[in-house]
Amino acid sequence: MGSVFDLIAFDGDDTLWHNERSYRDAREHFRSLLNRVGIELDVDQVEATVTRTEVANIRYFGYGVSSFTLSLIETAVDVTDGRVTSDELRSLVQLAKGMMNEEIEVFDGVRDTLATLSKSRPLMLITKGDLLHQASKLERSGLQDYFQHVEIVSDKTPSVYQRILSRYGIDPSRFLMIGNSLRSDILPVIELGGVAAYIPAALNWVHEHADAPAGAHDRFFELSSVAEVAGLVKRLEAMSSRASGLLESNDD
Amino acid sequence: MGSVFDLIAFDGDDTLWHNERSYRDAREHFRSLLNRVGIELDVDQVEATVTRTEVANIRYFGYGVSSFTLSLIETAVDVTDGRVTSDELRSLVQLAKGMMNEEIEVFDGVRDTLATLSKSRPLMLITKGDLLHQASKLERSGLQDYFQHVEIVSDKTPSVYQRILSRYGIDPSRFLMIGNSLRSDILPVIELGGVAAYIPAALNWVHEHADAPAGAHDRFFELSSVAEVAGLVKRLEAMSSRASGLLESNDD
Repeated sequence: MGSVFDLIAFDGDDTLWHNERSYRDAREHFRSLLNRVGIELDVDQVEATVTRTEVANIRYFGYGVSSFTLSLIETAVDVTDGRVTSDELRSLVQLAKGMMNEEIEVFDGVRDTLATLSKSRPLMLITKGDLLHQASKLERSGLQDYFQHVEIVSDKTPSVYQRILSRYGIDPSRFLMIGNSLRSDILPVIELGGVAAYIPAALNWVHEHADAPAGAHDRFFELSSVAEVAGLVKRLEAMSSRASGLLESNDD
Repeated sequence: MGSVFDLIAFDGDDTLWHNERSYRDAREHFRSLLNRVGIELDVDQVEATVTRTEVANIRYFGYGVSSFTLSLIETAVDVTDGRVTSDELRSLVQLAKGMMNEEIEVFDGVRDTLATLSKSRPLMLITKGDLLHQASKLERSGLQDYFQHVEIVSDKTPSVYQRILSRYGIDPSRFLMIGNSLRSDILPVIELGGVAAYIPAALNWVHEHADAPAGAHDRFFELSSVAEVAGLVKRLEAMSSRASGLLESNDD
């Protein structure tokens, strides 16, 4: 059976383990805090308002819980015209500490998939956010031993993926990336000539929305769970094996 | 002339460019904010109080400006018993944005030293803190092209250095690390069997204090500026060359 990929990489948050759920709960806490000061916003309004601040702040604070918390503090003061108390703002820092330490819940099928795939080629985790937080989540997930390489990056652009592949000497066409964000995990990899498997998550941060790649039908796959990844790899390997078999018989 | 080092790595903050100065200015802003609420602390008291919170928060938020800012907010509320206004706390987020964007002032002699050293072996930057902020500082420093490798890490422990050296296949005894922090740049490298050059900075964060390594006289060097690094490397190479010359004449 032909080997098709020299490297298979996974996103972490909302691909291997729950993450957005924790942000949703934090926004809900934030919504009730605004409520107490007499500002009545519904769930969607809170998400839109907070995300607007977060996106404007990415250039200063990057991705992750610290950045999210600084954005919540800023938003709270702005939306309430300074009526939120400093004690309430301090409770947001406390909330962030809770997020940093909460239990990591791995999705069904993840462990078996990583165990299977890691037997025949190196696996890599490519995740963005707080350096410390992402490393600690991986450790607490218990999945660390399946990954030969871990790359925590400040953004997932084509040039960031290019740099990683160059460092490890991987040809993009022999690279498979798996993730829940079209914007961060799929489109940049397709652009480089890589192969990408998209697994939509139940909860997604609105900032990560993007359209599926046009064309690239043989390099873009949509799956419904991580448990399907090993099957996809097997199918692609069988196809490649048949194709090289055909080539060989043509050579005869 | 014998080559002694396969890899030379530099710390960034307060080794290649000014950094602590910016935190000192931020603490001064913070001190006058407390002053307005009637809390009179001198410079040392502010540094001690803020550092206590920061050190307690490293496990949640790591190193860097975001972490520092969340610690300032927490400290402000605690020290003033909630009398600081939410507008004043918001001004701390604004202060952080300023820190993230301020001009990077490279120390004298750094550019020439990197230009000289990078001609004969790969240079690496090993720095800890916010992923995005450190990458942006390197870019704004104009020093990026001298570094073949950049490693932004969440902490500088022996195992972190070990992982980096293994990844690039470098023997610790052929690795030179240069930095201003005994705790982060020097001691862990000496522990691994590497060579370290310590350049005390005019301003240092109290958390980074440590004693100089005992023993290891041939692997620990104290310099007064980065401009002396090329001379040190030349001296060590000449010594190694003489030593191997002696060995060769013994072989005759």
